[in-house]
Amino acid sequence: MRMVEVIERKRDGEELSREEIGFFIDGYVRGEIPDYQASALLMAVMLRGMTDSETRDLTLAMARSGETLDLSDVADIVVDKHSTGGVGDKVSLVAVPAVAAAGLPVGKMSGRGLGFSGGTLDKLESIPGYRVDLSVAEFKAQLRDIGIVLTGQSANLAPADGKLYALRDVTGTVPSLPLIVSSIMSKKIAAGADAIVLDVKVGTGAFMRTLDEARALALAMVRIGHAVGRRVAAHIADMNQPLGRAVGNGLEIRESLEVLRGGGPHDLIDHCLRIAGELLRVGGVVPDLESGIRRAAEMIETGAALEKFRALIAAQGGDVRYVDEPERFPVAPVIESVTAPRGGYVAGMEADEIGMAVVDLGGGREKKGDPIDHRVGVVMQVQIGDAIQQDQPLFTVHAASVETKDRAVARIKQAIQISQSQVERLPLFYDRIT
Amino acid sequence: MRMVEVIERKRDGEELSREEIGFFIDGYVRGEIPDYQASALLMAVMLRGMTDSETRDLTLAMARSGETLDLSDVADIVVDKHSTGGVGDKVSLVAVPAVAAAGLPVGKMSGRGLGFSGGTLDKLESIPGYRVDLSVAEFKAQLRDIGIVLTGQSANLAPADGKLYALRDVTGTVPSLPLIVSSIMSKKIAAGADAIVLDVKVGTGAFMRTLDEARALALAMVRIGHAVGRRVAAHIADMNQPLGRAVGNGLEIRESLEVLRGGGPHDLIDHCLRIAGELLRVGGVVPDLESGIRRAAEMIETGAALEKFRALIAAQGGDVRYVDEPERFPVAPVIESVTAPRGGYVAGMEADEIGMAVVDLGGGREKKGDPIDHRVGVVMQVQIGDAIQQDQPLFTVHAASVETKDRAVARIKQAIQISQSQVERLPLFYDRIT
Repeated sequence: MRMVEVIERKRDGEELSREEIGFFIDGYVRGEIPDYQASALLMAVMLRGMTDSETRDLTLAMARSGETLDLSDVADIVVDKHSTGGVGDKVSLVAVPAVAAAGLPVGKMSGRGLGFSGGTLDKLESIPGYRVDLSVAEFKAQLRDIGIVLTGQSANLAPADGKLYALRDVTGTVPSLPLIVSSIMSKKIAAGADAIVLDVKVGTGAFMRTLDEARALALAMVRIGHAVGRRVAAHIADMNQPLGRAVGNGLEIRESLEVLRGGGPHDLIDHCLRIAGELLRVGGVVPDLESGIRRAAEMIETGAALEKFRALIAAQGGDVRYVDEPERFPVAPVIESVTAPRGGYVAGMEADEIGMAVVDLGGGREKKGDPIDHRVGVVMQVQIGDAIQQDQPLFTVHAASVETKDRAVARIKQAIQISQSQVERLPLFYDRIT
Repeated sequence: MRMVEVIERKRDGEELSREEIGFFIDGYVRGEIPDYQASALLMAVMLRGMTDSETRDLTLAMARSGETLDLSDVADIVVDKHSTGGVGDKVSLVAVPAVAAAGLPVGKMSGRGLGFSGGTLDKLESIPGYRVDLSVAEFKAQLRDIGIVLTGQSANLAPADGKLYALRDVTGTVPSLPLIVSSIMSKKIAAGADAIVLDVKVGTGAFMRTLDEARALALAMVRIGHAVGRRVAAHIADMNQPLGRAVGNGLEIRESLEVLRGGGPHDLIDHCLRIAGELLRVGGVVPDLESGIRRAAEMIETGAALEKFRALIAAQGGDVRYVDEPERFPVAPVIESVTAPRGGYVAGMEADEIGMAVVDLGGGREKKGDPIDHRVGVVMQVQIGDAIQQDQPLFTVHAASVETKDRAVARIKQAIQISQSQVERLPLFYDRIT
């Protein structure tokens, strides 16, 4: 087989065979197929698309390109969740302990934030001592012992994805549905997932800006999940404003602890319960989503979810005093509350701008490897649809300096639209696809 | 400017600016833009196309990517011709001396053969001593002194084209109209051409297999030529059978000498006169094509074209005794004439198969750098539309060994279709675009 002929077939809109896709992935990971041939094929895929059969074969070839985790000795069924990323998205921090407390083990490998989108690992590292570099042996032992793990990707899972993603990033081939789907699903499959819940965000703070795009991605992931024999459910969730109120790593951990203690904002609570409930359903603990949501709510009401989160922090070396006494979290030196210049209704937010304001405060990354200040961020005090009075608090900025505070205040003010006519509230979710 | 954004714009079907195209070509030639970004852009161009304005900017950026020849001190107007390649195409060997004999200087840089398509340099090297590596200074001196040069590309002309072509060859991005046009035209412009005649071949022995494809290429080249301020004319010529009778380097030189002496097959004579006539017209020597054809024919009838060819061979170190006594050309050790198995009409030929049979005899190259045996080849004794009798000679194979002769005989027999019903002759030319 010659790579140039594989490229030519995709260029001409033909369907690649499993052998051709395997030839490409294996050859690329081994370094036998050069980047310049891979990028030509990626652009052809970008513009010609892939059938479900090709996307399935690509996903499996990528999943098998490195190590694969076998967790069958520590869990009867392995569930996993994936969020497409957003601003203030702390769902894993609540949903995973709730699910684990209900008796369904969850061992999850999470990522770091990049651009406006935050990452679970960065948030957890707000707690001093918390380790995100567990070995596969530690991962499995902890999953067996306490039924919960939240760590980084230590094993060499789906190396084809990492290599292809780096190439896509510099060749204009990121926004291709089959490439996005295979990237997400291959890592989940390599990590041993039997059942996967997808939290697909849409809006100004998401990578998918329109409901059509989000639905197309959700449908494609569910179809491919089924094609590779996994249980899958996707929820399409609103991300036109931050999820919850807090954006910024330490601030988000504290808000998650509020929810685990039975408090917190309703949108965040409802979002976490729905994802947790779906995880319990696909994991076979409950027969339907409603029962799952009720079970997850019980885990929070009884304190079992908080107890599981505490056990997680302890197991991974974190200082549990931060869980018990959240006032221990270091506070940013400059805090300013911004009030409404006039009365009206909150009509819109550019959630990505709010996310980028937090990056600029030092709470996120413009590029891989940038350091993180866990203290900084913003707490929103209004949501779209709220009626507001003049001088009512809109948001509070937590900054390391007056200079960065001023920039964030100006940027977030710009990002909030206030209207004189009444505005409808946004739904939390738009659709569920199973 | 960032290359990834240039790729993204072309990916999304937008028109690139002159600055973006210049940024790409300059950065790529300097090695600042890597192959993997260039190939992604090439695939996007392949699938999204380019406007005339983009193709013009690409052509000029490539033409200016290296040295450019200025021949204004040795010729008032510089004419050049380009053939898209074919089997038995020896037109330059007759047309260029005829034009030069008529007083219009022609300094031409030619290429070598690859695959089924032969190259003028390989043919000329059948004459012992002939040099194809003239320096720019030698090129200009000879053009001034005798008004004719046929050599290889010694100057660093349009290096972007060489680098891009090598990449296109391995990334499935060869058959893109704007990339083909810019490749051809950029080299001609860098070589100083003011007026260009394009000999676009169509048929089984050409890269363009359909008249639609050939016409699209011819139209695009003429439009781009005009857009960059050159005089251009394109002829669309049949290549469903070898041009003339001989295929193979020494055999083709001998056939060219026959034409220069006033003999030779009519299809080849007419083809050479038409291209020469058009060169005389775009060079301003004659007012129209018909006058050009008559003038070129006179140059052959009077022996002036042959005399010019002899001067060319002498100037470039070739042994002119081969021009005067063609029987000096070494003869292949194994020659076999193949006759018709039955009577009928010659209905078709796979001219590319005949070309590849000659490559297999040692008379061409499968890949760059392969050595050439100048003695071998095939001489066709029939053309499409000929009525043939059983046992009438069809073709003669000239081979270095019995083994290669047997393979060529079998292959060429397969390539000739004989029908029982009458078959029309093919036209020499399908169209002329000015």
